[in-house]
Amino acid sequence: MSFIATPQSMHFPDALPLQSGASIRDYHLAYETYGQLNADQSNAVLVCHALNASHHVAGYYPGEEKSTGWWDNMIGPGKPVDTDKFFVIGVNNLGSCFGSTGPMHINPDTGRVYGADFPVVTVEDWVNAQARLLDRLGIQRLAAVLGGSLGGMQALSWTLQYPERMRHAVVVASAPNLTAENIAFNEVARRAIVTDPDFHGGNFYQHGVIPQRGLRIARMIGHITYLSDDVMNQKFGRQLREGLELKYSTQDIEFQIESYLRYQGDKFSSYFDANTYLLITRALDYFDPARRYGGQLSQALKVASARFLLVSFTTDWRFAPARSREIVKALLDNGLQVSYAEIDAPHGHDAFLLDDPRYMSVMRSYFENIAKEVA
Amino acid sequence: MSFIATPQSMHFPDALPLQSGASIRDYHLAYETYGQLNADQSNAVLVCHALNASHHVAGYYPGEEKSTGWWDNMIGPGKPVDTDKFFVIGVNNLGSCFGSTGPMHINPDTGRVYGADFPVVTVEDWVNAQARLLDRLGIQRLAAVLGGSLGGMQALSWTLQYPERMRHAVVVASAPNLTAENIAFNEVARRAIVTDPDFHGGNFYQHGVIPQRGLRIARMIGHITYLSDDVMNQKFGRQLREGLELKYSTQDIEFQIESYLRYQGDKFSSYFDANTYLLITRALDYFDPARRYGGQLSQALKVASARFLLVSFTTDWRFAPARSREIVKALLDNGLQVSYAEIDAPHGHDAFLLDDPRYMSVMRSYFENIAKEVA
Repeated sequence: MSFIATPQSMHFPDALPLQSGASIRDYHLAYETYGQLNADQSNAVLVCHALNASHHVAGYYPGEEKSTGWWDNMIGPGKPVDTDKFFVIGVNNLGSCFGSTGPMHINPDTGRVYGADFPVVTVEDWVNAQARLLDRLGIQRLAAVLGGSLGGMQALSWTLQYPERMRHAVVVASAPNLTAENIAFNEVARRAIVTDPDFHGGNFYQHGVIPQRGLRIARMIGHITYLSDDVMNQKFGRQLREGLELKYSTQDIEFQIESYLRYQGDKFSSYFDANTYLLITRALDYFDPARRYGGQLSQALKVASARFLLVSFTTDWRFAPARSREIVKALLDNGLQVSYAEIDAPHGHDAFLLDDPRYMSVMRSYFENIAKEVA
Repeated sequence: MSFIATPQSMHFPDALPLQSGASIRDYHLAYETYGQLNADQSNAVLVCHALNASHHVAGYYPGEEKSTGWWDNMIGPGKPVDTDKFFVIGVNNLGSCFGSTGPMHINPDTGRVYGADFPVVTVEDWVNAQARLLDRLGIQRLAAVLGGSLGGMQALSWTLQYPERMRHAVVVASAPNLTAENIAFNEVARRAIVTDPDFHGGNFYQHGVIPQRGLRIARMIGHITYLSDDVMNQKFGRQLREGLELKYSTQDIEFQIESYLRYQGDKFSSYFDANTYLLITRALDYFDPARRYGGQLSQALKVASARFLLVSFTTDWRFAPARSREIVKALLDNGLQVSYAEIDAPHGHDAFLLDDPRYMSVMRSYFENIAKEVA
């Protein structure tokens, strides 16, 4: 049984300075909270989202089918991140398309839709925006920041930008930066979107069209990288969609995997904003706390003081275990307290969203200990 | 020093029945030969090509810069496949775009360009077409059929379709069929092409346009899968294209890897035919000799009698060593003679085209032994 979630929105009139040198003002952040903030405001957990997710982390919206939050298996009453004990906050990041201010909204400086003019936002910018939201919610120090994938990058960045404002960082299926291959996949997806004639340089809103072709391709590429080769073979293999005979066609769907990918692409292209896709993949590309330290991650993490849990999944080739181990090593180099679980799961990067009993049990234990600290 | 290559063309008036039930007549095959056929016609080696290659396997065209054949490091006088000893034949496959009859040519049944009507061709069809060419060249039995990647699939198929017409099969960086992930990448590439508004359902020729956007995306995806994660990190890493400062742009090139991929995409889209891309990736998808045997590769290979060399490369994640080992096992199950080399090379799938001394030395030894047999 899940619970009813209530989306909220906070307005921020003051300009938020961004890493690029630009700034954004008069913006909204969509967020949700679950559970009760305790008397000394010590039990708050911030959950950061990845590419295609939002502030709607757990619970459901009454009357809306399939409205369950994206990490509802992890977060809720009695769940590993137990909302009977924690006050959990989900925030939709700036530039996203699920309620917070993004490229589809009006630029207060021009009175026109931002479109391509929405400023490039980084993981660090998101963390700053999240910190401002916490200020307004009266939360000085978090029990934990938790995130998977790009969300894990935000959790890691929190430990560097606001070390004094958090106790724990839980970084799941993440990496200290993207590899060249990761950037390459992002770039192909972006090119598919940008070269779609319906993109109109990012100003497609006023043309009444959506670059759906590009978004479909972007999502199909994404999906391939979220799954492991093994799980794809298991789920789809070389199974034909219909019957046993080949159709001998280059354009009709022949294999189940094609049908699955096209379906995922179609679905995604009907709701996800094309400019948001560009912005979020770019934030992924740019994240690299070691950059200012000549690539020395240990140097970059010197300022951190949180305690850490890192989790990775053996078949995740998008954010491979070796990348998590780089973070673990750099944390240990700094004498920081770090737990690390490498989960032998077949599902690839997607594993961080799925119910693996060992994964769930690691998360549960870790958060039980945090709960004791802040009780 | 390389040698001058001379492209040739053979006309085939008679209909070639295709696996799909369709047939193709009045077609041409472009081919090249290097070296001299010996008196008893026993020293012929057929080289089969992969997606983006042709009959121009070795040598160069006088006056044309960068016209060196795609496997010139492997094939030529004194090279591992020594044209002082072998008569080497390269054939451009039907449906390709380098001289043999393809979708850009006139359909004799309609008098119009084939376009989308070009029949779907399979690895088996190509092998049949190659066998007909050999008939015309007066070659009854090949010393070897050699191919890498999709070319390796043709070499494998030769051993099943014409076991009596060959002594050796050399199957490099190949697989007994594509995995779901392989098919998935092909499908994304095809969707990028087919949904490009300039594709016009495959009949873009009469519109005077080329679906370059789609071809660019297809090639970028391809390139990512040809390289290993490691070699991408080594060659490009997170290096910026210009200077040390970020531009904070979603559309400008920021990282070297983006520049490389865009360049490869642009180049490819200027010369490769979109319909050919669909046809060749489909031939890859369809190849699966074990299909008629309930997935039992050992059963499928029962008819083979050739001696085999298989080569794979450790970092090739497109056609991983495990896939070559499946073939090796199935051959051994049938008591066939097979040598297998797994080369520890960092270059991913591309390794089969590169100069790795251990790889070259394995190939040289194997072909030296063949040369002794047929001398």
